[in-house]
Amino acid sequence: MASESGKLWGGRFVGAVDPIMEKFNASIAYDRQLWEVDVQGSKAYSRGLQKAGLLTKAEMDKILQGLDKVAEEWAQGTFKLNPNDEDIHTANERRLKELIGETAGKLHTGRSRNDQVVTDLRLWMRQNCSTLSGLLRELIRTMVDRAEAERDILFPGYTHLQRAQPIRWSHWILSGAIAGNPLGVDRELLRTELKFGAITLNSMDATSERDFVAEFLFWASLCMTHLSRMAEDLILYGTKEFSFVQLSDAYSTGSSLMPQKKNPDSLELIRSKAGRVFGRCAGLLMTLKGLPSTYNKDLQEDKEAVFEVSDTMGAVLQVATGVISTLQIHRENMVQALSPDMLATDLAYYLVRKGMPFRQAHEASGKAVFMAETKGVPLNQLSLKELQTISPLFAGDVSQVWDYGHSVEQYAALGGTARSSVDWQISQVRALLRAQQA
Amino acid sequence: MASESGKLWGGRFVGAVDPIMEKFNASIAYDRQLWEVDVQGSKAYSRGLQKAGLLTKAEMDKILQGLDKVAEEWAQGTFKLNPNDEDIHTANERRLKELIGETAGKLHTGRSRNDQVVTDLRLWMRQNCSTLSGLLRELIRTMVDRAEAERDILFPGYTHLQRAQPIRWSHWILSGAIAGNPLGVDRELLRTELKFGAITLNSMDATSERDFVAEFLFWASLCMTHLSRMAEDLILYGTKEFSFVQLSDAYSTGSSLMPQKKNPDSLELIRSKAGRVFGRCAGLLMTLKGLPSTYNKDLQEDKEAVFEVSDTMGAVLQVATGVISTLQIHRENMVQALSPDMLATDLAYYLVRKGMPFRQAHEASGKAVFMAETKGVPLNQLSLKELQTISPLFAGDVSQVWDYGHSVEQYAALGGTARSSVDWQISQVRALLRAQQA
Amino acid sequence: MASESGKLWGGRFVGAVDPIMEKFNASIAYDRQLWEVDVQGSKAYSRGLQKAGLLTKAEMDKILQGLDKVAEEWAQGTFKLNPNDEDIHTANERRLKELIGETAGKLHTGRSRNDQVVTDLRLWMRQNCSTLSGLLRELIRTMVDRAEAERDILFPGYTHLQRAQPIRWSHWILSGAIAGNPLGVDRELLRTELKFGAITLNSMDATSERDFVAEFLFWASLCMTHLSRMAEDLILYGTKEFSFVQLSDAYSTGSSLMPQKKNPDSLELIRSKAGRVFGRCAGLLMTLKGLPSTYNKDLQEDKEAVFEVSDTMGAVLQVATGVISTLQIHRENMVQALSPDMLATDLAYYLVRKGMPFRQAHEASGKAVFMAETKGVPLNQLSLKELQTISPLFAGDVSQVWDYGHSVEQYAALGGTARSSVDWQISQVRALLRAQQA
Amino acid sequence: MASESGKLWGGRFVGAVDPIMEKFNASIAYDRQLWEVDVQGSKAYSRGLQKAGLLTKAEMDKILQGLDKVAEEWAQGTFKLNPNDEDIHTANERRLKELIGETAGKLHTGRSRNDQVVTDLRLWMRQNCSTLSGLLRELIRTMVDRAEAERDILFPGYTHLQRAQPIRWSHWILSGAIAGNPLGVDRELLRTELKFGAITLNSMDATSERDFVAEFLFWASLCMTHLSRMAEDLILYGTKEFSFVQLSDAYSTGSSLMPQKKNPDSLELIRSKAGRVFGRCAGLLMTLKGLPSTYNKDLQEDKEAVFEVSDTMGAVLQVATGVISTLQIHRENMVQALSPDMLATDLAYYLVRKGMPFRQAHEASGKAVFMAETKGVPLNQLSLKELQTISPLFAGDVSQVWDYGHSVEQYAALGGTARSSVDWQISQVRALLRAQQA
Repeated sequence: MASESGKLWGGRFVGAVDPIMEKFNASIAYDRQLWEVDVQGSKAYSRGLQKAGLLTKAEMDKILQGLDKVAEEWAQGTFKLNPNDEDIHTANERRLKELIGETAGKLHTGRSRNDQVVTDLRLWMRQNCSTLSGLLRELIRTMVDRAEAERDILFPGYTHLQRAQPIRWSHWILSGAIAGNPLGVDRELLRTELKFGAITLNSMDATSERDFVAEFLFWASLCMTHLSRMAEDLILYGTKEFSFVQLSDAYSTGSSLMPQKKNPDSLELIRSKAGRVFGRCAGLLMTLKGLPSTYNKDLQEDKEAVFEVSDTMGAVLQVATGVISTLQIHRENMVQALSPDMLATDLAYYLVRKGMPFRQAHEASGKAVFMAETKGVPLNQLSLKELQTISPLFAGDVSQVWDYGHSVEQYAALGGTARSSVDWQISQVRALLRAQQA
Repeated sequence: MASESGKLWGGRFVGAVDPIMEKFNASIAYDRQLWEVDVQGSKAYSRGLQKAGLLTKAEMDKILQGLDKVAEEWAQGTFKLNPNDEDIHTANERRLKELIGETAGKLHTGRSRNDQVVTDLRLWMRQNCSTLSGLLRELIRTMVDRAEAERDILFPGYTHLQRAQPIRWSHWILSGAIAGNPLGVDRELLRTELKFGAITLNSMDATSERDFVAEFLFWASLCMTHLSRMAEDLILYGTKEFSFVQLSDAYSTGSSLMPQKKNPDSLELIRSKAGRVFGRCAGLLMTLKGLPSTYNKDLQEDKEAVFEVSDTMGAVLQVATGVISTLQIHRENMVQALSPDMLATDLAYYLVRKGMPFRQAHEASGKAVFMAETKGVPLNQLSLKELQTISPLFAGDVSQVWDYGHSVEQYAALGGTARSSVDWQISQVRALLRAQQA
Repeated sequence: MASESGKLWGGRFVGAVDPIMEKFNASIAYDRQLWEVDVQGSKAYSRGLQKAGLLTKAEMDKILQGLDKVAEEWAQGTFKLNPNDEDIHTANERRLKELIGETAGKLHTGRSRNDQVVTDLRLWMRQNCSTLSGLLRELIRTMVDRAEAERDILFPGYTHLQRAQPIRWSHWILSGAIAGNPLGVDRELLRTELKFGAITLNSMDATSERDFVAEFLFWASLCMTHLSRMAEDLILYGTKEFSFVQLSDAYSTGSSLMPQKKNPDSLELIRSKAGRVFGRCAGLLMTLKGLPSTYNKDLQEDKEAVFEVSDTMGAVLQVATGVISTLQIHRENMVQALSPDMLATDLAYYLVRKGMPFRQAHEASGKAVFMAETKGVPLNQLSLKELQTISPLFAGDVSQVWDYGHSVEQYAALGGTARSSVDWQISQVRALLRAQQA
Repeated sequence: MASESGKLWGGRFVGAVDPIMEKFNASIAYDRQLWEVDVQGSKAYSRGLQKAGLLTKAEMDKILQGLDKVAEEWAQGTFKLNPNDEDIHTANERRLKELIGETAGKLHTGRSRNDQVVTDLRLWMRQNCSTLSGLLRELIRTMVDRAEAERDILFPGYTHLQRAQPIRWSHWILSGAIAGNPLGVDRELLRTELKFGAITLNSMDATSERDFVAEFLFWASLCMTHLSRMAEDLILYGTKEFSFVQLSDAYSTGSSLMPQKKNPDSLELIRSKAGRVFGRCAGLLMTLKGLPSTYNKDLQEDKEAVFEVSDTMGAVLQVATGVISTLQIHRENMVQALSPDMLATDLAYYLVRKGMPFRQAHEASGKAVFMAETKGVPLNQLSLKELQTISPLFAGDVSQVWDYGHSVEQYAALGGTARSSVDWQISQVRALLRAQQA
């Protein structure tokens, strides 16, 4: 009946397997990059088989040597794929058999393909997370170095993109460094390693769950969300209107049409990748949703997601490091963007120190802002007399309020924008970096 | 054994139904807003039953009058829910039976709850899409009105947030109006209505598919994505640094801490809702993924998604209309933001008109930009002699290039920024609005 | 200061451009597949330039011949990429200049790279949607052919995965065919073509919006959601427990560990791809969210999404067609899965036809089900006497209820599972297919 | 000009603030549930102010008493909201001022609304995560209790939904218990608490980042993904075809149309919520993408997401606990579903123990399966003679292979399905539960 069916409705292909299905099913195009961990895992497994008495010492040695030869061929680029090598595991096993004969068949005693796939991916991710963690530390180190060297430069802090209060440039840099701090990757790394150190609790769950993949993709998504926000800030700071920073030519491109333009392509690409990376995370969770337990082929989707996200993160972290390390800042423009109305909160605090409740002081300062706007003068140009019509608590010492350097130094609480606080943040992040590296 | 089990592992509740499950299962808290369409659908169905000979004329009349009474109670707020009314359909059916007795039981001949749910939701969405469509037209109409009144104001066009070329303010407004054009909603509306006009092709598919919900949620997501981009532009244009526009007080809020600030909360909320709306779309698709065919209770998720998104869209469209209609623009700042280097492309075109291939002309213009930067003068302050060191094609008429008004008038192709082109866009959008309303 | 900065914080690379940035920025690795439409677009544009008097006839001919030569090189695999060819547009332009000299520079008069990119992608998608549309029609045609040939096979219809009522196997097939009907693609195709036919309304919006990409990705997501549900059904129907269908060997794979198994990998992969495709849609919308208007480099993300989704859809549609065309069905198992309790609704309708309101009849039938369960007999083995204890309306003719063939024939309304209704559905879908092809 | 604009394009509302904007902006409808933590945070802050010398002891006491009174009003349901109370913080502050006068204004010295919002939400989540963590432990405890009581029941283990090998029912239960293990919540809880214990490193980052919200939403998404898979398994096991389990009436519902049906609504709702919860996570990340640093009103989206997800998780965990604790299992059906071909792997292992390499043994066992199928007999009915045609290694002791109990006992490695291994898993999970509770 099957063949009849074929005649009735199909007939598109002849023979046992649809070649499109074969290609649809095969993962060798992307999982070949697992060659090294696949050999590594098989070597460990053959040692386990020997210990369990399922391989003799001689058989194990033969297998280990054969696997080393397979690895050598991959490393030297001489490994030749067959059309039937649908995945890296099949390919390595097939080659091992060619090299050492039937003994190769003993390697797979009591090990399912699904176990092997998931072990290989865990091993690959352990290596890879370590690389990404290094790149992330490099980015943070670059940020901290700049923060240290440039901590005396003031510029406007913004909330709602409205100028709020004067802050140190280094305070902004460190807010990015902290948001991207490497605890994320290392926690994941640790977790993964612990899992290897410990024993998987349940064999059904072990081949079925992909939490380690989902958590990696989510870590990457969250990290990219932070980087997209840092990129947005820098794109804005680099506009003609802000003119606080200038990207080095190495990270900009010109326009094919408009000769005068220099576009922040590097930052725009970083911002855009947040979408791509999150899309992979969303895709994996949707694939997992409602799957029956244990292994289903659906789980094959995990690898391309991990590989692509890992490549993207590697490129993004390096480009971000390059951008930050070569970014030119226009310190005069930054200072010039400060204006007396940004000290309105300080003016309120002045009244608080004279004994006025904050809510009243806030209102009084608001009146001063309104008065200055109405008169068309900067806030610090209101005369003492004028201020006293708002509150009799204003006195000659109010003139001390109009000093940006003095203003930022008030925020000396840990986490603030005072010099001492920024220094403390620098030392904290450096300590974290050292701790990560140890 | 079930009761044994209960003793062994459960015992949390006594009696037939877990009250938490009852609440988890019930949809009355949100589907009560379907009361009107539920009555409407039941009235139509009872007419169908009579036509099919399953109700006598007298029975039908009794049912119709009963249903009218139910609707009246809802409209007047006197409908009383019972604890057992788990959804609006049960509630209305229960009440109908109290009002007219056993005849009520005949109403549900050959109609499953699943049919009823999906029909009610389609009816509700038809009404609701019509309302949203009206609000969207109102927003677009407001934008076109402004575009018409302010078409002589020039300001910088940006790409990559870098100043590119002078454009008309109205050109920007219309880019938003077109992006948000109402074809989306109406296509959906039409599609839905057609589906009602036509006959559902397959009864299994009819209760199972939620394409009309998914498409509505995606339309809303795409619409919100456009609005988030318009909001981003306006937030930027409203910063101190750009100072092109100022939000009316009605759509701003002050800071609890900083007296001098006025925050564009309305625009930030519009921007943020793109995430919320898309999240609902993502959630529904994930719920649908891999579901067995026909009805599964999972489909109950559709309604809250539709109701929430519909409310959000309604608020967003009205607030956006309010923002646009009361937005103050600073035309002097807009013009002052234009600078001669934005005419570098025009300078290249000048050479093209003298016979130089565009790629060479682009390079020559780039050299002029570089020369001006090196000398520290605006591009239009280079002397003819200086320009001629770059190309002998420069002549006295190059001075005509330095006119922003002349520059924009060059882009008279349909869709461009010339006055005539902007007028054409206005008339096109007005025509669309008229067509939609008809 | 920039160089100082380099020394202070960077120093990772020497020279003008960071090679990692260059690779991060380049799109040639994936946009090279646009070569054909890029040449096609350039040829059309050069004709436009000639018409506008910006190219002489001779220049245009030179360009057209050069472009044909470029296309020939791509087609024959002899086109050689330079390291500086960052995208397909640069590559083709560079090669054209090598072939015909400076005249090549005139081709880009008044055309920005952003215009060119978006035009190329639209052209590519028009071709590609046409291919996908063809594959979708092929799948639907296969389904309709089977539906026609196998319309006399009955099996259980399920809701909530509980056996509900007897239905025709063809009714199920058609529910899938209708869900996946090609209107989606063609609507998109039409829309895109119309857009080409018509004129883009606003030049700012034209380079900035990616609605046509987002809508394509959403169409694919929704289509995949339907296919994931069809795959889920077939996976279930293929379990030992259901045993309704058997996948051909061409679309199954064996287990590396368990010799007796045959796994439905093809269907599992189809189900899994719903996640991947939707992930791309989610990623693009997230990338678009909050972008400033007009072109930003973020938009470069559109192409890989479209290419990957297009490849995935192509493979999925072909594999699905193969699966359906070679699927073996076990008609005896299907019929044996029918049981008298699935006719409980028919039993209620029997009472309705005798004059009982449906709600009461439903209750009476429920009592009969309970009585049969209690007595441990099938529902149709209750004696007339026993039934009459539930309702005096039961009479000898109740025996006619226990006929599955008769049961399905009741649902002769359009969309139902009666033979005539299924035939009508087949003819409707065939008509749609014909309309699409015309 | 603003008023002119108003006349020209607006005129929809009169007065200072658009009432729709007011409602759009207000969060009191959902953030009122923060009342308790808001008071708690304010009390702590007033103590800090006193310590810093910004409040006298008497002022602090007055404020503390006032705040206690506010809390009392909320607890007793007598707190009255004003129309101007746009959020819980404004409401509490307004009421405090009514109760204690101007001193209330001192409470907000040096504290921004953004600080207060984020602190309140962290406090609320700490409480709430603790509740959810308890519910999750309850679910897991129920699962472990069942696993312990029912560990001698065997049934088929599936991969790809194909029957694979015999396993213990408890092995399946524990795979779910482990997947849902409470480390997730507690890690989060710990992290959050640590953050409170420690000091926020950077004040800009502190109001701007929402990692704690994103991580909570992702934890919930991943947890729901696991529960959706457990629900899918149980829905399948509860079909007529599988008949392994039966849901208690407390967690099922009947059909409005088909009297014989009992639908697993509870499990379908659990499965569906994975979409809803993930949608919230996706929405938040999209809202965060590309936001400028520090506070933007967009961040207000965090709270509704957290509240809704928290409610959903609470309901899901309790219903899942109820379902598991009352689930009836059909042990005879489970055992009857085992068939000799599921021991084909054991047959291969038999040959491995006789010295054959696994790959050859796998092939030999496959031949035996094929031979049995061809002859139409169960695998264990092949005679020794027949088996010996496949391999001479088969001997009389092969009969010992055909014992399901013996088969599962082979998998005594940690994590396996042997009785001892399952006992070990039970003790491990119990140890985890104890550790969590301590």
